[in-house]
Amino acid sequence: MDSVISPEGRMEVLSKAEVGKLLDSSHGGLYMVFRNCALAVLNTGSGLDDGKELLERYKNFEVNIIQRERGIKLEVKNAPAKAFVDGVMIKGIQEHLFAVLRDILFIHADITSNPQFDLSDSEGVTNAVFHILRNANLLQPQVNPNLVVCWGGHSISGEEYDYTKQVGYQLGLRGQDICTGCGPGAMKGPMKGATIGHAKQRVGQGRYIGLTEPGIIAAEAPNPIVNDLVIMPDIEKRLEAFVRIGHAVIVFPGGAGTAEEILYLLGILLHPENQDLPFPLIFTGPASAEAYFRQIDQFIGATLGPDAQKRYQIIIQNPEQVASAVVDGIRRVREFRKQRGDAYYFNWLLHIDPEFQRPFEPSHENMRNLAIRRDQPVHLLAAQLRRAFSGIVAGNVKAQGIRAIEQHGLFEIHGDADIMEGMDTLLASFVAQHRMKLPGKAYQPCYRIVK
Amino acid sequence: MDSVISPEGRMEVLSKAEVGKLLDSSHGGLYMVFRNCALAVLNTGSGLDDGKELLERYKNFEVNIIQRERGIKLEVKNAPAKAFVDGVMIKGIQEHLFAVLRDILFIHADITSNPQFDLSDSEGVTNAVFHILRNANLLQPQVNPNLVVCWGGHSISGEEYDYTKQVGYQLGLRGQDICTGCGPGAMKGPMKGATIGHAKQRVGQGRYIGLTEPGIIAAEAPNPIVNDLVIMPDIEKRLEAFVRIGHAVIVFPGGAGTAEEILYLLGILLHPENQDLPFPLIFTGPASAEAYFRQIDQFIGATLGPDAQKRYQIIIQNPEQVASAVVDGIRRVREFRKQRGDAYYFNWLLHIDPEFQRPFEPSHENMRNLAIRRDQPVHLLAAQLRRAFSGIVAGNVKAQGIRAIEQHGLFEIHGDADIMEGMDTLLASFVAQHRMKLPGKAYQPCYRIVK
Amino acid sequence: MDSVISPEGRMEVLSKAEVGKLLDSSHGGLYMVFRNCALAVLNTGSGLDDGKELLERYKNFEVNIIQRERGIKLEVKNAPAKAFVDGVMIKGIQEHLFAVLRDILFIHADITSNPQFDLSDSEGVTNAVFHILRNANLLQPQVNPNLVVCWGGHSISGEEYDYTKQVGYQLGLRGQDICTGCGPGAMKGPMKGATIGHAKQRVGQGRYIGLTEPGIIAAEAPNPIVNDLVIMPDIEKRLEAFVRIGHAVIVFPGGAGTAEEILYLLGILLHPENQDLPFPLIFTGPASAEAYFRQIDQFIGATLGPDAQKRYQIIIQNPEQVASAVVDGIRRVREFRKQRGDAYYFNWLLHIDPEFQRPFEPSHENMRNLAIRRDQPVHLLAAQLRRAFSGIVAGNVKAQGIRAIEQHGLFEIHGDADIMEGMDTLLASFVAQHRMKLPGKAYQPCYRIVK
Amino acid sequence: MDSVISPEGRMEVLSKAEVGKLLDSSHGGLYMVFRNCALAVLNTGSGLDDGKELLERYKNFEVNIIQRERGIKLEVKNAPAKAFVDGVMIKGIQEHLFAVLRDILFIHADITSNPQFDLSDSEGVTNAVFHILRNANLLQPQVNPNLVVCWGGHSISGEEYDYTKQVGYQLGLRGQDICTGCGPGAMKGPMKGATIGHAKQRVGQGRYIGLTEPGIIAAEAPNPIVNDLVIMPDIEKRLEAFVRIGHAVIVFPGGAGTAEEILYLLGILLHPENQDLPFPLIFTGPASAEAYFRQIDQFIGATLGPDAQKRYQIIIQNPEQVASAVVDGIRRVREFRKQRGDAYYFNWLLHIDPEFQRPFEPSHENMRNLAIRRDQPVHLLAAQLRRAFSGIVAGNVKAQGIRAIEQHGLFEIHGDADIMEGMDTLLASFVAQHRMKLPGKAYQPCYRIVK
Repeated sequence: MDSVISPEGRMEVLSKAEVGKLLDSSHGGLYMVFRNCALAVLNTGSGLDDGKELLERYKNFEVNIIQRERGIKLEVKNAPAKAFVDGVMIKGIQEHLFAVLRDILFIHADITSNPQFDLSDSEGVTNAVFHILRNANLLQPQVNPNLVVCWGGHSISGEEYDYTKQVGYQLGLRGQDICTGCGPGAMKGPMKGATIGHAKQRVGQGRYIGLTEPGIIAAEAPNPIVNDLVIMPDIEKRLEAFVRIGHAVIVFPGGAGTAEEILYLLGILLHPENQDLPFPLIFTGPASAEAYFRQIDQFIGATLGPDAQKRYQIIIQNPEQVASAVVDGIRRVREFRKQRGDAYYFNWLLHIDPEFQRPFEPSHENMRNLAIRRDQPVHLLAAQLRRAFSGIVAGNVKAQGIRAIEQHGLFEIHGDADIMEGMDTLLASFVAQHRMKLPGKAYQPCYRIVK
Repeated sequence: MDSVISPEGRMEVLSKAEVGKLLDSSHGGLYMVFRNCALAVLNTGSGLDDGKELLERYKNFEVNIIQRERGIKLEVKNAPAKAFVDGVMIKGIQEHLFAVLRDILFIHADITSNPQFDLSDSEGVTNAVFHILRNANLLQPQVNPNLVVCWGGHSISGEEYDYTKQVGYQLGLRGQDICTGCGPGAMKGPMKGATIGHAKQRVGQGRYIGLTEPGIIAAEAPNPIVNDLVIMPDIEKRLEAFVRIGHAVIVFPGGAGTAEEILYLLGILLHPENQDLPFPLIFTGPASAEAYFRQIDQFIGATLGPDAQKRYQIIIQNPEQVASAVVDGIRRVREFRKQRGDAYYFNWLLHIDPEFQRPFEPSHENMRNLAIRRDQPVHLLAAQLRRAFSGIVAGNVKAQGIRAIEQHGLFEIHGDADIMEGMDTLLASFVAQHRMKLPGKAYQPCYRIVK
Repeated sequence: MDSVISPEGRMEVLSKAEVGKLLDSSHGGLYMVFRNCALAVLNTGSGLDDGKELLERYKNFEVNIIQRERGIKLEVKNAPAKAFVDGVMIKGIQEHLFAVLRDILFIHADITSNPQFDLSDSEGVTNAVFHILRNANLLQPQVNPNLVVCWGGHSISGEEYDYTKQVGYQLGLRGQDICTGCGPGAMKGPMKGATIGHAKQRVGQGRYIGLTEPGIIAAEAPNPIVNDLVIMPDIEKRLEAFVRIGHAVIVFPGGAGTAEEILYLLGILLHPENQDLPFPLIFTGPASAEAYFRQIDQFIGATLGPDAQKRYQIIIQNPEQVASAVVDGIRRVREFRKQRGDAYYFNWLLHIDPEFQRPFEPSHENMRNLAIRRDQPVHLLAAQLRRAFSGIVAGNVKAQGIRAIEQHGLFEIHGDADIMEGMDTLLASFVAQHRMKLPGKAYQPCYRIVK
Repeated sequence: MDSVISPEGRMEVLSKAEVGKLLDSSHGGLYMVFRNCALAVLNTGSGLDDGKELLERYKNFEVNIIQRERGIKLEVKNAPAKAFVDGVMIKGIQEHLFAVLRDILFIHADITSNPQFDLSDSEGVTNAVFHILRNANLLQPQVNPNLVVCWGGHSISGEEYDYTKQVGYQLGLRGQDICTGCGPGAMKGPMKGATIGHAKQRVGQGRYIGLTEPGIIAAEAPNPIVNDLVIMPDIEKRLEAFVRIGHAVIVFPGGAGTAEEILYLLGILLHPENQDLPFPLIFTGPASAEAYFRQIDQFIGATLGPDAQKRYQIIIQNPEQVASAVVDGIRRVREFRKQRGDAYYFNWLLHIDPEFQRPFEPSHENMRNLAIRRDQPVHLLAAQLRRAFSGIVAGNVKAQGIRAIEQHGLFEIHGDADIMEGMDTLLASFVAQHRMKLPGKAYQPCYRIVK
């Protein structure tokens, strides 16, 4: 499909220099990342969750910027037909295209090439995350805490998917907004449910926030309900964005990516400075997912210990209870921040160790060098475990990771024997439960555990 | 549950005389009808579709009007708990309470007791319908035709329900608004689907119109997505409202009520004066409903003839095709009205025979006197058939009808033998398909066909 | 000028019967009153304040209603050119045309021909006033009291006019809204001033309410800043509307009409039932107007006594003090209503004697029969005095009154000698100060005081 | 006056680093410029137009930033009382405080310390102007050209002031928005007039743009009607902002600053590349200002020649004609940009010579070195003349300039004898007409013309 689309909102106005940079397909230019993210956004709803395959299938896809007297327009050529209804691009997808434009431009011009941001420094990273989110208009003052981050697999069973909708519905009825990592499954269900809940409560301004990054967006295209899409520069800043803006986190069943997210958050919460910080965290699913969460719980107990287990609550098959627990937890968050004078819209008080901020490049070497050992503080062990799972996600769904596996063979992961044992068991159960890929494909592991 | 709720919108301001009239529970007063409709509105989502049972279960329910310096408030006592989330009434239901107030007051003060409206006259009835709808803010000028009326059963299978959602979703993606008769099933599914479609298309002002009447509201409570609820005075004005404001009609599977609606609309469209008037009418359902629509089609062919069959289109298991056919049909409606200078928001040109406007009291005598015979113009035969089904609906679900059956036994319906035969077959198939009541109850027929 | 204009807001949707009634120029039809009010509205800013002259000058003026698919439009022919800028009608005036349409239709269809309203009864009159105002969307709940009624002459000096602007500016800075009787001079100045004050305070929804009636509108066309225009049926209901919706009244210098308004309000406030009701009333003007207010004060002292004098405050040449006194007074009004549970948007507690509600027809006979005598309660004496001044206004500026004077000679006014003396002095001073007519015309008295 | 105020709009959300920078009163910090601009904004309406005097009078003034859970607030201490009404700060002034905050922060963090902007390069300067304006939300796409820049003195006669109001009123009636350089006089009158015109035309979103800079704001505080205030970094970028966003320019009578603006604009328009570019430019004033404009016209004719005279139109005492000429001219601008595909919101096609972009430091040496000679292209001569007037403005009203004159004596200006003669005559007439300072002070020239 070909189409010319007009933008909405603030980003319609570009300088000539900005247009030039976006269309520059030379080495330093932004065209390729812009084009690939644009393609990913247009691919929503297709069921294709393999970034490499996507890029190959739409080799002729092009996106162009046209300057008109009333602002700029985007011209797309050979775009996926799914993005259109009767020849007209779905409005939500249009907005996503312009969000891609906005973030890629901002990150390049105002973050990475601006000496004000020292990205090798912990404060500098946090500051960059803050600026990207503010530029995307995500930091809303004057609003009470109500943002619930939902994590979980994008390839879940129909029953699990329906359950995420029910939880979203109960959240929506209670005026909560939803933030997910984009994509189908547990990323989409809560938003659909909340949309219905918001409609019944006449919440006209319900927020459905999607946080993604150039490396994952092709595999997990934002669904068009998302009305605030942000492209973070990398997985670490994306994860930091989740925990800085979310007021509670719900984890639905998922695969390696979900495990990565759990380990990331627990690693941060286990840092001594965050000991007293309230942070509602709920694992939930339908009755059929109970075993799954028991396995996770057991793995956490065995590796990070009972203190880690105290930071979350497991609720099975009870959407209303989940929603009530979230509302209760957020009330405590609100009181805590009020007392300390911390912003509602950005969790400045949460301490994030640089280990969780430093981008992890899942190369074969880096994977091999992970130190998954008990002789370190638990929050650092969590950081190591998080990276292991991050690498596995890359090998499964990210274009670059898939290519690396094709070239160099499986990742090798080392560590203490009992942890490796637990990890192997956990990953095996994920495979058995078809949690590693969209159904219909045989799963090919991308790693090898070296005990 | 007890609660005091504040209104939204125009109707917050009542005169002392109006408050007095609403709270007057004497014979001429409006309290009983106001209270009973209020109760019905609060009972949404309960699964209870028996008006009589509802009134008996909530005998202690009370609603009161409180005058405050900033406007009036409503106080409810002993209300159904389903209307509340964490002790706070769902906003959509609050709005419905005030819609009830608005319409009951307006119908009494400005229609039935105002000599300007001669309700014994066809034009007078149409004028009354117009004024009630305008007072409810339903007649929006400056808006292109996009209102799709969805009819069908409130007690349908899960598969059929999912199908109505898909059709609603496709309509919502195409910017169409939804109007139904309120209640669950085919009345709710299209609205839920359209809500998601509208969210994706950023249609912030999607309209979900519910048209009901005091006699049916207890059995078919409006679901809270409905954001424009109107209580018409009786079934005939409600049906007229549907066909005057709708730009297309979709019929999903249903029972006797759905058959009544089909016969009503075909009866009108078969009037010679409406011969050239475009009016998109589509019967649709999932594959499993194909047999159902074939039976209806056959009954119509056998009684009203092939001209009647030409006025509708049957589409099985294809939501996108339904939505496209609707959009196409509405385009023709728009052109037609533009040519004739008729309003988009009210179908003045549609001729409605007084036979379809005169309220039909489904007493035992009136049912017995129906003239279901071929020796009359088809549009009048349709009117007779319509009344037969109307009586059956009353005997099934309306409080008054149920009581009449309890007292005087089954209705008796007379007519030409072959028509009676067809009708018997059709109704028997409805029963067999569990289309006459919510599942879980044995169906007790309220009529006897006298061949 | 000829033009076709589209309406804004709710009234765009008319039934065929309504259009018919408005265009019916036969005896029972509404065309003439509609056309004449429309002409008056279009004549704003022309400096012509003589209703009769206006009608004669624009004999060929026509207004027509056109039904289109998106709603109705108005077509005007031979309209005053002042209503247009570069050939396009000023938007504010467009709105006024549709306000005229709305009120004339509503008053006819829903008030005077609806048996619900017994206009011979005091409660019935108040109820009618309430319904007309509500239909015009003037009764806003959820809003704190802030409506300041400004009375005064439409033919005042430049210095007085600038002063009214300054008072309006100070009111606007304090978030107060303005209500006047339409027309130039003291009716326009406060609105202009408040517009600037509101702009500085970012009050986007400032209300500039104009209350008029068919008999006076030709002489005092609403200026286009008025964004809520209401045509009341007659002078008595218009005056009742002022005191029911206003939270404070400011009186600027004026002529006979202003005196009528003062006497009307004092007569009501002097009723024993209103003794404890707070009602801020301020007479104010520039230094040059001090003598004028002293004369009025003296006349009131001499006729209605010191209790009447206690109900108002005279502030000379101090706009800030006026605004502060208004804000203070309204605070007391708010507390009073809150305590009594009375509405902020309609002063139900104010008792208005039927003597002040009954329309006064200023015929020669009625004027002759006025009983301006001390042997009655002061509030009834005030009613008599009010009528005397009302008659004089009619004889000066209303088309009908002017014609009556032309035919039957001057009005004759009888009463106690000393009161007549005082009245004569007061009126003579009005004449001397050029307060009886727009400058540039010699004033011809329309009455004769019979001592 | 002390007060704590909450912000509105986007800028309520600051990072900790930003707050730190704003409150940093050390050499590299932003506190002093922030505090002084804040003070200037609060000083509106005081009649004090001497920046140095202002800073001295409010030595104890402080502004502080407070982080709260719902966003930041500003705390001011010892602020000018004029900024408050009944103890509450005027809303428009609140907004200005936050505009100051926004621009000072943005200019520092994203412009001057961002290597993306090469401010020694012509394109780089234009790009910086673009980014500052976009960040201030001033570049509105989807809007038709309607922005009229009004230049003229802030110290003009009452008659001239009333005339600027009338012109503003006629522009407002025609839906035009106003942009000025802030301050009283010709900067305020058009906005007041347009406010009334917009009110009558129901233009709810009228824009009143004020462009200022840290060096002039103390002398010309924005009046609170301004609803889009931008603090540009220096006079050259401010002037470029005017001509890039304005669609037409009206010049009212003024003094040296007005002459500077005229010379700036003519110098640009005389550049060969701008020869065919439409740019409506109108000099206008009441009858009493005719001589003034004839003198200017003569000076331009004598120095820049007849081609320069062709670029403007002089209209005396005719506000309607001015407004019509503006509307006509803007129509041509619109067509021109449409043809070329240039943005409506930013005049990219206008060529601005670096001579007009390079900040001119009005030091004694720079003033002495001006080359006001005929042996150069006229547009460069205009640039030299512009700088001469710029220096004179600095010496008259800018804190830094006044101090320089106090220390080093008068500026000396050299050039061709006849030009110097003309300049002397012109400046002498400005002095004679009291156009160099607010009335009530004797004017002390800050320059000496060396012929």
